[in-house]
Amino acid sequence: MKIVIDGFGGDNAPDEVLKGAAMAVEQLGADISVTGDIELLKARMKGLGIPEKGIELVPANGVITTEDNPRSILKDKADTSMGVAFRMLADGKADAAISAGSTAAIVIGGTMIEKRIKGVKRTALVPLMPCKDGKKYCVLDGGANIECRPEMLQQFAILGSCFMEKTMGVKNPRVGLLNIGTEDEKGRELEHEAKLLLERTPVNFVGYVEARDVPLGAVDVLVTDGFTGNVYLKACEGMGALMKDALKSMFFANLKTKIGALCVKKQLGGFSKQMDYKEIGGSPLLGTAKPVFKAHGSSDAKAFFGAFRQAKLFVENDAIAEMTEAIAALGVKDDK
Amino acid sequence: MKIVIDGFGGDNAPDEVLKGAAMAVEQLGADISVTGDIELLKARMKGLGIPEKGIELVPANGVITTEDNPRSILKDKADTSMGVAFRMLADGKADAAISAGSTAAIVIGGTMIEKRIKGVKRTALVPLMPCKDGKKYCVLDGGANIECRPEMLQQFAILGSCFMEKTMGVKNPRVGLLNIGTEDEKGRELEHEAKLLLERTPVNFVGYVEARDVPLGAVDVLVTDGFTGNVYLKACEGMGALMKDALKSMFFANLKTKIGALCVKKQLGGFSKQMDYKEIGGSPLLGTAKPVFKAHGSSDAKAFFGAFRQAKLFVENDAIAEMTEAIAALGVKDDK
Repeated sequence: MKIVIDGFGGDNAPDEVLKGAAMAVEQLGADISVTGDIELLKARMKGLGIPEKGIELVPANGVITTEDNPRSILKDKADTSMGVAFRMLADGKADAAISAGSTAAIVIGGTMIEKRIKGVKRTALVPLMPCKDGKKYCVLDGGANIECRPEMLQQFAILGSCFMEKTMGVKNPRVGLLNIGTEDEKGRELEHEAKLLLERTPVNFVGYVEARDVPLGAVDVLVTDGFTGNVYLKACEGMGALMKDALKSMFFANLKTKIGALCVKKQLGGFSKQMDYKEIGGSPLLGTAKPVFKAHGSSDAKAFFGAFRQAKLFVENDAIAEMTEAIAALGVKDDK
Repeated sequence: MKIVIDGFGGDNAPDEVLKGAAMAVEQLGADISVTGDIELLKARMKGLGIPEKGIELVPANGVITTEDNPRSILKDKADTSMGVAFRMLADGKADAAISAGSTAAIVIGGTMIEKRIKGVKRTALVPLMPCKDGKKYCVLDGGANIECRPEMLQQFAILGSCFMEKTMGVKNPRVGLLNIGTEDEKGRELEHEAKLLLERTPVNFVGYVEARDVPLGAVDVLVTDGFTGNVYLKACEGMGALMKDALKSMFFANLKTKIGALCVKKQLGGFSKQMDYKEIGGSPLLGTAKPVFKAHGSSDAKAFFGAFRQAKLFVENDAIAEMTEAIAALGVKDDK
């Protein structure tokens, strides 16, 4: 199995990419390709004391940035470090691809260069979020598809469920449909129709779920349209930031509270990490025929290592095969 | 000015209602009517040592509960403590009404018994939420109108803006339209059309706002459709609950952290209160021709006092007149 990573995607590339790759080679026995300026990569590996074993360097020209038109990944930016990684995936030279670069370019490149699973209408970038007791749940769609039809939500449920089971080790993941109440009559036409579909979909559908219950661990897979999903995710992020800010004021109030802060310093660090959804690592782009992972732009070596581990599990457990089978069983017409 | 309160609405009625009313008479010089079983109210006032001055008791039969069909407030539950309060408002015997009873009944009763402001298409129940530095912002719609047309969002902007200025003392309130990005092309048809309307509405419209920036204080009035608004509010609530839970684990980890907890005990209480949107008190029902306030079901005397203060400011500052004028200036046809 070969995992290719965009050597120049993210704020801390290429050093943290290379360090993460070295960790993955050593601890996971992964076989890794790193794309980018070969001379520079070689020099940094030498500088960081990273052995060559298990790491193949693949030449690419420049980087696609968040300022670039993301569609240029298909044209004049096709030979950038990200473009080459996707091309390797599409050509069968790699089994999974990771990038911490431009999200929009990853979604477009991942969807257009790599093929979709037969029958899948839309791909979804699927963030993992923290919930109670240090657990995680995934949200799809998180913002790519702002208008969704019920059949898209049905497919999202399958993709998310397979991902949580095969990659995150959640047995029989609970799939919930985001709504403003749990009673049958609550919600819009979209929720009503999607519920009917989900009730006859081979996932562990637990029905409607309210946003207030999700962070407390009510579901493993939260299904909704991309507009609502994005608002949900960003509301969580904003509340997290507000709470952190308030905690800071609390601990800096006076000498006594500062002593209090010292007493919980260690736990406070863990708390902060647990609440920071950026720390969780890779978001898979689901629906593609081969796995594509988006690592957070500020990823460090540990975060990249986490993305490598996710990608490896994804491939080893053949999540794509299960997704393909489940989507085919829906009997939807392949209208892509 | 007379404020009528549903004497038997809420978990702590009638005792906390009466105590809150007594505080409002003493501290605000308010003139208050309390509806309900007069004998029982008299006995409780005596028991609690509450003087009769400033408090009129108005007879009513029974209570409408959350189990009752909320529409029954218009029919067989019209003479309950809530129904009588709304009737007094509609008949001009009171200038504002408060209830901590069934939310659905308040929305229906408040909208149907009391008239709407001329031209207002829909009323909205408007929760106040905590944001940075102990400030507050309001959200409309928070869930009553799940499908909204752009003109409804335009009216919500006016209602929310007047409320924040006249009752909450916010000068020139910043109105933001909730969206998944701030760029022009982001969002759905609803956001695009509402933005065009809001740009020529006499409010301080600051454009699109992302959910992550709202808890950090980006706007004073958050405008969105009821489905999205409800998801936003409940996501905030859920994240707040998750953070509280995590904090608890943090402080109970070991002896050292427990000592830490003692050092910040006072601040922790304040933090918890600041984050609990239930503590903030009344949510106005905006769009009605006279002010209706929903107090939280678990309100104590202090929370009821807060609702009395809001209602008094609302009437004194003649927020309704300003709303009426601004809505009329839109020149919309009164199709109610």
